[in-house]
Amino acid sequence: MTATVPEPGRPRMARWLSTTNSVTATFLAAGRVQGLINLAGGLPAPELYPADAMAEIAGQVVRDHPAETLGYGPADGLPALKDALAGRLATADLHLSRDNVLITGGALQALDLVGKVLVEPGQTIAVQAPTYLGALDAWRPRDPVYRPITLDAPGLDAEAALAGAQFGYAVPNFSNPTGHLVGLPQRQALVAAAHRTGTWLVEDDPYGTLYYDAAPLPRLIELSAAMKPGPYAGPVIYIGTLSKEIAPGLRIGWVIAAPEMIAALTMGKLAGDMCSPGVTQRMAAAAIRCGLIDRIQPQVIALYRARRDALCAAMAAHLSGWLDWEVPVGGMFVWATLRDPSLDSARLAALALEAGVCVAPGASFDPLGRASRSIRLNFTLNDADRLQEGVRRLARALAAA
Amino acid sequence: MTATVPEPGRPRMARWLSTTNSVTATFLAAGRVQGLINLAGGLPAPELYPADAMAEIAGQVVRDHPAETLGYGPADGLPALKDALAGRLATADLHLSRDNVLITGGALQALDLVGKVLVEPGQTIAVQAPTYLGALDAWRPRDPVYRPITLDAPGLDAEAALAGAQFGYAVPNFSNPTGHLVGLPQRQALVAAAHRTGTWLVEDDPYGTLYYDAAPLPRLIELSAAMKPGPYAGPVIYIGTLSKEIAPGLRIGWVIAAPEMIAALTMGKLAGDMCSPGVTQRMAAAAIRCGLIDRIQPQVIALYRARRDALCAAMAAHLSGWLDWEVPVGGMFVWATLRDPSLDSARLAALALEAGVCVAPGASFDPLGRASRSIRLNFTLNDADRLQEGVRRLARALAAA
Repeated sequence: MTATVPEPGRPRMARWLSTTNSVTATFLAAGRVQGLINLAGGLPAPELYPADAMAEIAGQVVRDHPAETLGYGPADGLPALKDALAGRLATADLHLSRDNVLITGGALQALDLVGKVLVEPGQTIAVQAPTYLGALDAWRPRDPVYRPITLDAPGLDAEAALAGAQFGYAVPNFSNPTGHLVGLPQRQALVAAAHRTGTWLVEDDPYGTLYYDAAPLPRLIELSAAMKPGPYAGPVIYIGTLSKEIAPGLRIGWVIAAPEMIAALTMGKLAGDMCSPGVTQRMAAAAIRCGLIDRIQPQVIALYRARRDALCAAMAAHLSGWLDWEVPVGGMFVWATLRDPSLDSARLAALALEAGVCVAPGASFDPLGRASRSIRLNFTLNDADRLQEGVRRLARALAAA
Repeated sequence: MTATVPEPGRPRMARWLSTTNSVTATFLAAGRVQGLINLAGGLPAPELYPADAMAEIAGQVVRDHPAETLGYGPADGLPALKDALAGRLATADLHLSRDNVLITGGALQALDLVGKVLVEPGQTIAVQAPTYLGALDAWRPRDPVYRPITLDAPGLDAEAALAGAQFGYAVPNFSNPTGHLVGLPQRQALVAAAHRTGTWLVEDDPYGTLYYDAAPLPRLIELSAAMKPGPYAGPVIYIGTLSKEIAPGLRIGWVIAAPEMIAALTMGKLAGDMCSPGVTQRMAAAAIRCGLIDRIQPQVIALYRARRDALCAAMAAHLSGWLDWEVPVGGMFVWATLRDPSLDSARLAALALEAGVCVAPGASFDPLGRASRSIRLNFTLNDADRLQEGVRRLARALAAA
């Protein structure tokens, strides 16, 4: 055969691969540093996973539903899980049927599918800036143009922000990366603008159950539903996940939206991975139905509230000379901005890594590469002692900067 | 608020949605017909699922590996499953490490990811024609151009077939839809051409364990590995799945390829759904490790061989006046071609549906819409009695055509 013939080069890979940001690779490399304290990721506390209960549920759902857990299922998800979620999310105003629900492989697959069905190269996505890194990654292969929206800017013109975009994107509850809670007036303005312009409005809500100090504000999709009675058919595309409520390893996310959007996303899902596994869908449905998720929610909130307090107390003690931040009222992150305009957060992140703590540099979260004077700190993964030690290491890095 | 203002139209959806073929929708609608016999799909026999053993395994893996099954995992898959698959697929010539393996959400996600990393709009994919419908669906959002290859044509010029394409695509073992087994000379020609041209060569192998009458031929990736010693770094992108070996509901597929391709596909997976669920990955690893898959394989083969024989016997008794076919030596399908050139298989499929049997019209499987005189019949889902009744109904439809 031809083993001795030198081989020609391979075909070029798709362009988006060469534009991918390097922050994920940096984090992965950081994972190998001995004794490193990881404040960079967005991971839940593994000690909260209800492992015994989930092991019991895992065996039970395969025994009780062998056809659904071992066979192919519908692309849009198992009816039992769709019904459980519709029941959990419906309100007096928000009327949901199965046609409003799609089950996805985590919230990230929902974002990927939204890009797949709505974006042609060069089209515009209006994003709350700074923006969730995973969303930017998910949409990169569709080659969009970004229009940043600063949701807490005074005098936001929401209609101008959304007009002509394929969709708007916001994380109203404790935005990733900033931890910012979008206020009710801005929520109302966004929803009204989506109804007026017709633009789809993606409400990404992974942290919606993580309110530590106050009652939850209404979701965008609830505000939208209140504008028109009947089964939901409005412009909001709501994305949720069980990753923060119970366990990310299930990879169970969902979309709640108008039936026409669910039908299009289902075509994308059918062509992308056929359907989500039956085992994890049935485990999720069982965990909702038996009350397990409701039972662990107070533990989740108590632990994360205490860790937020521990991080912010340590920051006040060690970092207040260098950084400004607001204490977030929920979510998983503190967003801190360097006072010294000559310092760059990418350089700070590199110095922090040398000092034994990993933080996320702000520019990674900005589609235009700005936000370069801020860093994102996670408080859910580590206990109070490690949070304090991480902050002390960051202070050493700042002193050396 | 603005409830009384009439709403403007929504932004247009991506173009590929309007070009999707309607055969899947037809099958779904068919599923609602009372008493219908479904010979159209590609479903395994559910009675083969080892439900009790899998229920036991499901509980055990969550108990034994709570962090891996409930937490986020690596985008490329859990090391335990990657090692189990590398061990299962390696041969004397094919040397595999973890860097050669990616875990995907079924084989379909592997196809989706190959399109995502290799295809820009207008680029060429050289496909064995007719072609697996799911592959055409998976690549449609990337807007490729198709170059059909007839792999059993005498005097195939494999280099001309692959040159300039981003990749070639073949199902050498019992092709979907034709059930055709690509012979050794054509396999050697394809692999040699991939090495000479540099073009990637996707070997999609869902039916590779379903040989009923003969010993398996070498896989394309084995032939490729034999051309160059050392860890695999050649042009073949091998795609496998547990869907036909044990249970499609696990949604466990995999890619075996050169590390540079695995790295690119992993970027696509990380941006698409982050990682596959830990529960199903650990279940798959356990089912391989404990020998469950090896134990059920003889049952799978015995049952499917008997059903193939039942279908082909019934066809010989009732359909030989209208159709020509070859008895497949493996896989899940019989491909039958109408003798009467004035008959169209889409019309036949519609008449068959009225007669109470669902068959897959050939044109759906051809990127250029040809193959319109053939139909695909599945023999794995139904028992012998239903296969015979399905054939009798098809004969009635043909008599009425």
